[in-house]
Amino acid sequence: MLIDQQILRIPGPSPIPPSVSRAMAQPMIGHRGQSTSDMLADIRPKLKRIFGTAQEVQILTASGTAGLEAAVVNAVAPEDEVLVIVSGAFGERFADICRTYHIKTHIAETEWGKAAAVSDITEALEAYPNIKAVFMTYCETSTGVLNPVKELAAEIRSKSEALIIVDGVSCIGGVETKMDEWGLDIVVSGSQKAFMLPAGLAFIGVSERAWKKIETNPQPRFYLDLQKHRDNLLKDTTPYTPALSLHFGLQRALELMEEEGLENVYTRHELLMKMARSAFKALGVPLLTVDEDASPTVTAVQPADFEAEVLRNVLKKEFAMEVAGGQKVLANKIFRLGHMGYCSPADLLQAIAVIEIAIAKAGGEIQLGSGVRAAQQEYLKGVNG
Amino acid sequence: MLIDQQILRIPGPSPIPPSVSRAMAQPMIGHRGQSTSDMLADIRPKLKRIFGTAQEVQILTASGTAGLEAAVVNAVAPEDEVLVIVSGAFGERFADICRTYHIKTHIAETEWGKAAAVSDITEALEAYPNIKAVFMTYCETSTGVLNPVKELAAEIRSKSEALIIVDGVSCIGGVETKMDEWGLDIVVSGSQKAFMLPAGLAFIGVSERAWKKIETNPQPRFYLDLQKHRDNLLKDTTPYTPALSLHFGLQRALELMEEEGLENVYTRHELLMKMARSAFKALGVPLLTVDEDASPTVTAVQPADFEAEVLRNVLKKEFAMEVAGGQKVLANKIFRLGHMGYCSPADLLQAIAVIEIAIAKAGGEIQLGSGVRAAQQEYLKGVNG
Repeated sequence: MLIDQQILRIPGPSPIPPSVSRAMAQPMIGHRGQSTSDMLADIRPKLKRIFGTAQEVQILTASGTAGLEAAVVNAVAPEDEVLVIVSGAFGERFADICRTYHIKTHIAETEWGKAAAVSDITEALEAYPNIKAVFMTYCETSTGVLNPVKELAAEIRSKSEALIIVDGVSCIGGVETKMDEWGLDIVVSGSQKAFMLPAGLAFIGVSERAWKKIETNPQPRFYLDLQKHRDNLLKDTTPYTPALSLHFGLQRALELMEEEGLENVYTRHELLMKMARSAFKALGVPLLTVDEDASPTVTAVQPADFEAEVLRNVLKKEFAMEVAGGQKVLANKIFRLGHMGYCSPADLLQAIAVIEIAIAKAGGEIQLGSGVRAAQQEYLKGVNG
Repeated sequence: MLIDQQILRIPGPSPIPPSVSRAMAQPMIGHRGQSTSDMLADIRPKLKRIFGTAQEVQILTASGTAGLEAAVVNAVAPEDEVLVIVSGAFGERFADICRTYHIKTHIAETEWGKAAAVSDITEALEAYPNIKAVFMTYCETSTGVLNPVKELAAEIRSKSEALIIVDGVSCIGGVETKMDEWGLDIVVSGSQKAFMLPAGLAFIGVSERAWKKIETNPQPRFYLDLQKHRDNLLKDTTPYTPALSLHFGLQRALELMEEEGLENVYTRHELLMKMARSAFKALGVPLLTVDEDASPTVTAVQPADFEAEVLRNVLKKEFAMEVAGGQKVLANKIFRLGHMGYCSPADLLQAIAVIEIAIAKAGGEIQLGSGVRAAQQEYLKGVNG
């Protein structure tokens, strides 16, 4: 096998564009100097556009989970009741964090692989009238589901005063997000997915309504105190030492996204999803989710006549290509193909061509080339075809 | 289009492996220090293995053409007669260099796209009994032909005392070369092809027989004086300032080749050639060369029902993928797919999948996916299938 090649097609971390790697390799600078302030001043408006908010998007040197925890400890008081919409492993994580802080936590559970429905929420809102926050996952990485955040938020807003808190780690930057327009209160993302960076930065958008709650919330927090982050960010600085290399990379990645055009970035992700789904359909290999629930950033596949783990081993051993397996209840049952961030139609075609070989080697009955053909046809139709 | 992606599939320069890029980014060191000597001591035996020689392989900070010129000015005296076997643009370059030095130059021309035949050489050797050197091209980059260097050399050795001088720029490192066993006298290669580096280094292997000629050759040369290079290299140093970054990269690239195993490297190139050729055959798009003449490092395609230049434009514009066009008499008639050096079966499949789309857009009548399927089948058969 060709040494030194890695084909990374897991749902994060995603591959790093060369110019982002080069940006991250810059020499260190003082994080209290003008250069750092200039960089933050450049980053701030670009992040706000991606989150669809006029408010500041805080940048924490931490992984996405710290962003989720920051949402909990800032926006939920110790005595609050909350509702968590769980449709996979990352919904569960939100619930785990809430329970760790002894917050009274209700769960609205959706079958893994399905999106949460507005009707489920309606029932839960009626059942728990005192909830102060609703947590949901935008893209559920563990199943490849994109939850209808806009519709869910509209329903919650129409029935309740609860804050709406969204985990957008594995899709924001790859799918459209309109925090202000949709009435989302806290939206969390991370650097290692559609933002085309290594892990290590969490991004947290906060609505005016949420700031009011945060300002009076007695829940203790220090590093994760979003007010400190906001107050510093408004002066183009940070409360604690920032991971500067990741910020250099973030600045470049945001430039790349604006150069491509945010609309084009979202269209590309949509196209990649359609190409991937068409390919597996043509191959006769079942998808975990229905089209309406599918995320543009990751596709979960549930093979019927071969073992997902055998396929993953062939990919790794013969092509140095990584796709993800299933988590928890889906362990050994699915594999997940990431197509977020630095991923082109050419990359998707490569992944399908290689996966076809691995399916054949894993004992799946397919016609070689038919998945690629379907993906090629989808490309030729275009995203609106 | 995804910004910052470049899919480089021309027959050189070829893509650079990440660890080679990292190696080249090392800080500068003094080129007269022990570290440089240690590096050269590490490089020397590895280069000799690739050239298949017990003699030193000189390393010049220069592009491949300087390596060809070094062969001429070192091994050919001003009054000598030489024979150049021309089967494409790079054969012509050897002739141009000889003529520039007013050397009496005979040509044995082969149709572009065909390999030189032993019988052609036999005739030329009889026609020009006084020749002191025969020049030939191992892989003719302009046509994707691999000339039968071993057989041609055997014929020349059996009929003549002429030195045998080989341009191996676009294949050595990707195809087996046994300089000593095959009786080759001077073999030239360059860094930017199968060696997985940027251009800037020329490698020149020299036989014992050639050294004897070189030592008494009155042709003036200074920078290209191979004796100076050899005498210094034997002491692990260089006569003039070496391109150190490229040497750092060379050291790492040679490590990668040894880690993969030279036999495996050659088998991989053979497989890539078979995959590419099977794909175009299945698509019904004519190849320029017959199987027996084909090079494992580059495949030339001569489309019948669409314009090669239209295809190249689609590839560049929609996929940031570069394949080469035709040169001189083949301009606008062919395109050339490079698959040398840092190129895996997964990369080849990607190239074919993307080229299929471009063929369709260029108006070629093909069945989408059928080229990929043929390449996948070739992969599953393996190189000896």
